[in-house]
Amino acid sequence: MDVDDLREQVRAFAVQRDWEQFHTPKNLAMALAGEVGELLAELQWLTPEQSSSVMQSDLAGQVRAELGDVMIYLVRLADVLGVDLVEAARDKLADSGRRYPADQVRGSAAKARRPTGS
Amino acid sequence: MDVDDLREQVRAFAVQRDWEQFHTPKNLAMALAGEVGELLAELQWLTPEQSSSVMQSDLAGQVRAELGDVMIYLVRLADVLGVDLVEAARDKLADSGRRYPADQVRGSAAKARRPTGS
Amino acid sequence: MDVDDLREQVRAFAVQRDWEQFHTPKNLAMALAGEVGELLAELQWLTPEQSSSVMQSDLAGQVRAELGDVMIYLVRLADVLGVDLVEAARDKLADSGRRYPADQVRGSAAKARRPTGS
Amino acid sequence: MDVDDLREQVRAFAVQRDWEQFHTPKNLAMALAGEVGELLAELQWLTPEQSSSVMQSDLAGQVRAELGDVMIYLVRLADVLGVDLVEAARDKLADSGRRYPADQVRGSAAKARRPTGS
Repeated sequence: MDVDDLREQVRAFAVQRDWEQFHTPKNLAMALAGEVGELLAELQWLTPEQSSSVMQSDLAGQVRAELGDVMIYLVRLADVLGVDLVEAARDKLADSGRRYPADQVRGSAAKARRPTGS
Repeated sequence: MDVDDLREQVRAFAVQRDWEQFHTPKNLAMALAGEVGELLAELQWLTPEQSSSVMQSDLAGQVRAELGDVMIYLVRLADVLGVDLVEAARDKLADSGRRYPADQVRGSAAKARRPTGS
Repeated sequence: MDVDDLREQVRAFAVQRDWEQFHTPKNLAMALAGEVGELLAELQWLTPEQSSSVMQSDLAGQVRAELGDVMIYLVRLADVLGVDLVEAARDKLADSGRRYPADQVRGSAAKARRPTGS
Repeated sequence: MDVDDLREQVRAFAVQRDWEQFHTPKNLAMALAGEVGELLAELQWLTPEQSSSVMQSDLAGQVRAELGDVMIYLVRLADVLGVDLVEAARDKLADSGRRYPADQVRGSAAKARRPTGS
């Protein structure tokens, strides 16, 4: 199964429930942010190390479900906007590759911090 | 190109810059939320109608780029957690289908509001 | 009761539960974002008009509680950072006043959209 | 200066620019989330220890400004909803005190993780 199939499934889910009327880009962006908030809530009190092994903890199922929710709303938002999500990501990655040449930013988070900085 | 290819590209991007050290689940979840925040900022003052035609406006390129950024961090976060994003979304959608039978929630946003409610 | 009193109450709440160890700026910023996500979730499917009268709806109590949660984490985050929240806001407002002279941006959301734009 | 004064200043700022038309609760909640996203972006790559000393770093001014922005939108959102922010926070804190008795949750983040859990 790929993103195109998932997009069709999510769209059908909305159509079957007559929820398309609620699925404006604004509303879906808010829903996406709400789901990301739930994901943050799962990780917020963990140490970096604990977060790295969270999928071996009893939080695993919940974290996976939240990732699923985030993906669902992101795919749905891209669908109503008519954007190819994987292509948009690939293009953005290529753009970032030009702005952050590996040999200039290696090992430096500071240089990654401000994408619009010089 | 599918999500697996994108995941490999994003991983290579991080490896080439020695940024894996910064890519804990906690940090990536924060970065994801930061990018979603930028997406919200693009849409925040638009009416619902304006948001629906945003890809026909001069904001189109920026909105697409923000969607790309969100996707990149989501794919990277799922990668470091070892979660198959499309599968997690499909499973969650199946679960939501059971909790929200189409004939009981049709046309009602209120019934969709609290996923964990009765 | 003012913000200083609230800050002291929130600090005491953390101290009494020995939760100061979890209250790093990173963790608190994530918790703040999580609470804002819950607030968004309350409003996400409402029309602009419905959102304007939400305090006259049966969602009023929940929205007020979410605002309270957001304020609690914001006050706590500012406390651990040693920042005076009201002063920081006042200074930022003065700064925005200089960047957005009323007679140049009146009635235009577009001009407010990019704080770092010209 | 207290929150009431700040609320009046923020309201005047909006009125002078004829921006009240954009200040629906939905839009302001999105703007609030956008500013919280900027705050997260400042902290995302820092270690917990680095985040604890961020106000002694060259990020201090930016972090303080982001806190100011978050506070401004939170105060404005509460204003348009007619909610007393400090009172809402105090009430929520009292409620949390009942749900998390200090002697039962001391030192445990896990017990704080799910406010609605048992």
